[in-house]
Amino acid sequence: MKYPNGIKKDKKRETCFSNRGMKLESELNDTNKYYLDLNIACIHKKPTPIKVVDVYYKSCKEAVITKAYFEKQSTLDYNGIYKGKYIDFEAKETKNSNYFPLKNIHTHQIKHMEKVIQMNGITFLIIRFSSLNLTFYLDGSKLLSFIEKNDRKSIPVSYFKEHGIQILDKLRPTIDYIKVIDDLYFKGGIYENK
Amino acid sequence: MKYPNGIKKDKKRETCFSNRGMKLESELNDTNKYYLDLNIACIHKKPTPIKVVDVYYKSCKEAVITKAYFEKQSTLDYNGIYKGKYIDFEAKETKNSNYFPLKNIHTHQIKHMEKVIQMNGITFLIIRFSSLNLTFYLDGSKLLSFIEKNDRKSIPVSYFKEHGIQILDKLRPTIDYIKVIDDLYFKGGIYENK
Repeated sequence: MKYPNGIKKDKKRETCFSNRGMKLESELNDTNKYYLDLNIACIHKKPTPIKVVDVYYKSCKEAVITKAYFEKQSTLDYNGIYKGKYIDFEAKETKNSNYFPLKNIHTHQIKHMEKVIQMNGITFLIIRFSSLNLTFYLDGSKLLSFIEKNDRKSIPVSYFKEHGIQILDKLRPTIDYIKVIDDLYFKGGIYENK
Repeated sequence: MKYPNGIKKDKKRETCFSNRGMKLESELNDTNKYYLDLNIACIHKKPTPIKVVDVYYKSCKEAVITKAYFEKQSTLDYNGIYKGKYIDFEAKETKNSNYFPLKNIHTHQIKHMEKVIQMNGITFLIIRFSSLNLTFYLDGSKLLSFIEKNDRKSIPVSYFKEHGIQILDKLRPTIDYIKVIDDLYFKGGIYENK
C-alpha cells in the first residue's frame, strides 16, 4: 500500500508519525494551489532536506539513493511572494488543547524569523489545535515578543486568542491566510490591489 | 572520502556529474552567507527534492531512507528576501563558450518566473560560461523576451553581453548579484537603504 509521496506505510511508521499534521499540510497545499491558479500569490512548500549518504548509479541518468537521512529544515517550511512582498511561514498541528509546545519550533528557525522581520518581510506561524478545531495565524512579531517576555516552553491557547487571528475553515481556499496578511499588512479589502 | 553533503564520491559519479557547477554553487553559498552575516539579504538554496520510497525505522526517532530518487525542482533553486522584496533565481554553469543551452531551464521553471514577475518579485538567472570565465546576471524579463522572440534552443553569449549584466569576480562577496539588483530595482547606491 502506498502513502503520500509513495512512502510505504507500515504499522511502526503510523505509530511514530500519527501526529505529524498531514491534514494541515494537505489543506495548505490546496490553499497554495488555489492562490497560484488565481494569480493571487505564489507560495510553495520547500522540499524536506535529506542528507544523502550512498547513491547507486545504474547509469548516468538513473541514480538510486540507497542510504539517506531526514534533516531539519534550517529555515521555515513555506515561502513565496504576495504583492511583491516576501512571505515565509511555518505550519504546525498539535493535539494538545491547552498550549502549543515551543519545542516544535527550533532556535535557528526563530533566528530566521528575526532576520525576515528585520528585512521587512512577512513571517508567521499557522498553528492548528486539532482537538479544539481551532486554527490561528500568529504573526512573527507576536511570537518573538512572547519568547522575549516569557520563560515558559509553550504558548497557551489564550495567547493565540488574544494576539493571533483565528482562520475560519472555508471551502476554497481552505486556510485563507492571505486574507489575514491583507488585513494586517496591506490595510485594504481582500486581494484589492491584485 | 566524503564529498559535499556527505555523498561518497566514486569514479562513475564524477564522470556523470562533473559538469554540475559545484564551484558556482559553492561561491553562491559563500555569497549568501556574506549577505546573511551582514544583514544585507536572506537568500537560501532550496533543498534538492527527493522522492522517498522506502524508509526503515530503527526506532521512532531514527529513520533511515533505504530507497529514494532525485527529483527536479519545480521552482528555482534559490529564493529569499532583499529590502522586503521577494528574490527568486536559478544558477547554471556551462562549459560551452558560444551559447547557453535552454534545456537546462525547464518549462515549469519558466512558468514560475512568469508568475514571480507578474507578482512584482525579482527573478533572474546567474549563468557562468566557465571556459570564458564570464558570469552574467540575466533578468527574468530578458529571458522571457528572448524565448518569446526566438525559436532557438540556446541563448548566445552575445545576448548576455547585450542584455545581461556581467558580474565581476570579487573577494567577498564572490558573486555580488545584490549590487546588480540594487542598480536595476532600487536605483540607488549599493545597500544604501539598509
